[in-house]
Amino acid sequence: MQKDDRPVILVTNDDGITAPGIRNLVEAVRDLGRVVVVAPDKPQSGMGHAITIGEPLRLEKVNEFDDIESWQCSGTPVDCVKLAKDKILHRKPDICLSGINHGPNHSINIIYSGTMSAAMEAAIEGIPSVGFSLYEFGFDADFTVSKHLAHTITKRMLEERLPEHTLLNVNIPKAKPDEFKGIKICRQAYAKWAEEFDERLDIEALKNGYASIVPIKIDFTDMAAKQMLEEKWKDLL
Amino acid sequence: MQKDDRPVILVTNDDGITAPGIRNLVEAVRDLGRVVVVAPDKPQSGMGHAITIGEPLRLEKVNEFDDIESWQCSGTPVDCVKLAKDKILHRKPDICLSGINHGPNHSINIIYSGTMSAAMEAAIEGIPSVGFSLYEFGFDADFTVSKHLAHTITKRMLEERLPEHTLLNVNIPKAKPDEFKGIKICRQAYAKWAEEFDERLDIEALKNGYASIVPIKIDFTDMAAKQMLEEKWKDLL
Repeated sequence: MQKDDRPVILVTNDDGITAPGIRNLVEAVRDLGRVVVVAPDKPQSGMGHAITIGEPLRLEKVNEFDDIESWQCSGTPVDCVKLAKDKILHRKPDICLSGINHGPNHSINIIYSGTMSAAMEAAIEGIPSVGFSLYEFGFDADFTVSKHLAHTITKRMLEERLPEHTLLNVNIPKAKPDEFKGIKICRQAYAKWAEEFDERLDIEALKNGYASIVPIKIDFTDMAAKQMLEEKWKDLL
Repeated sequence: MQKDDRPVILVTNDDGITAPGIRNLVEAVRDLGRVVVVAPDKPQSGMGHAITIGEPLRLEKVNEFDDIESWQCSGTPVDCVKLAKDKILHRKPDICLSGINHGPNHSINIIYSGTMSAAMEAAIEGIPSVGFSLYEFGFDADFTVSKHLAHTITKRMLEERLPEHTLLNVNIPKAKPDEFKGIKICRQAYAKWAEEFDERLDIEALKNGYASIVPIKIDFTDMAAKQMLEEKWKDLL
């Protein structure tokens, strides 16, 4: 048997293994490596970074994508990433892709997002990862622009590693190829409150027809507040 | 009826309303304001930032803490915070306290933590909030130091507001009062990998008998990586 030395691309999502979004993601990147799909057997939206505790996880090999190895799992997207690494691949994949989510995951809403939690779980493990979300909810959404972007970004990520434990949150506008304006690197917006006007925010880019890429860090420490507390709370320390 | 103008202190947790940790938290802060408890009716550990979608939430007034208004909820800790604000208080509480968790919530593990997710949900809403966790798992744990710290920190938070959308992650070591070494303001550790030695990390403080306070920010943007991408990926933009 010939050794397969292509990069291993783990694909997961939170809409479930039968969603059009994950099918389009697999098609977009299948020429870039050995794709392995491990995804929930049912929609898991709103599960945030939940993991399954106290009930057995079912993992079943399925034939959802013809010649692409694929597994469905009874757990959450985070469970899928853990199981893929520990029970299926027995190694870290070279990249983990999550999505393409049916609906956007911008601003602080990423905290509720199964799509982004899967990508964050991979980043915690030191696996380069990207979450893709399309600002269009229907299962008949047009994935042309999304597929193009998923291919471009994944290819670049495989060629050029980002700093460890940094992941990308990619949101794609609802746009036909000729309406698509391009990519902007953005800062996460706080959806529920006003921001400074000069910042380039994910939500603004998306509304204006651009895809937004927000790099996300797994260290949540507020360094400015840390310094402030060290001074102002000195009497407590 | 006399107007109650004391600060409203919302208390929740993820171990469930009958856990000793939440009872000790209520006792620790009851003299600081009008305490209202809204907590899950069963343990919700590992639920991360999950919210309940697609099934009705049950909310029931209970008499768990004598003269303290208390409600149990069938949902997650995040559901509790949302319901407390929208359905019970009909306003934002002045502070939200979550815990005292039975077991620590340091480093990136906060992402799986129901305790911290409740505090993060409050911070998203602009409510000052703190998660408290004790590095002792048993339901017969000694909460003496925890209660002292919960009182001190809550009092200070009510007197002196932190920047909006910053919350505190407080971890308390297993220590009797005479063994307790004090409080350190720390940076979140990445549990799974090595860190620079000169950083003051939550996990190190905790292991050495100190309580750690990590201020957490709700903006997860990696600003350094954002700048790097703007330069290196210029050809894609």
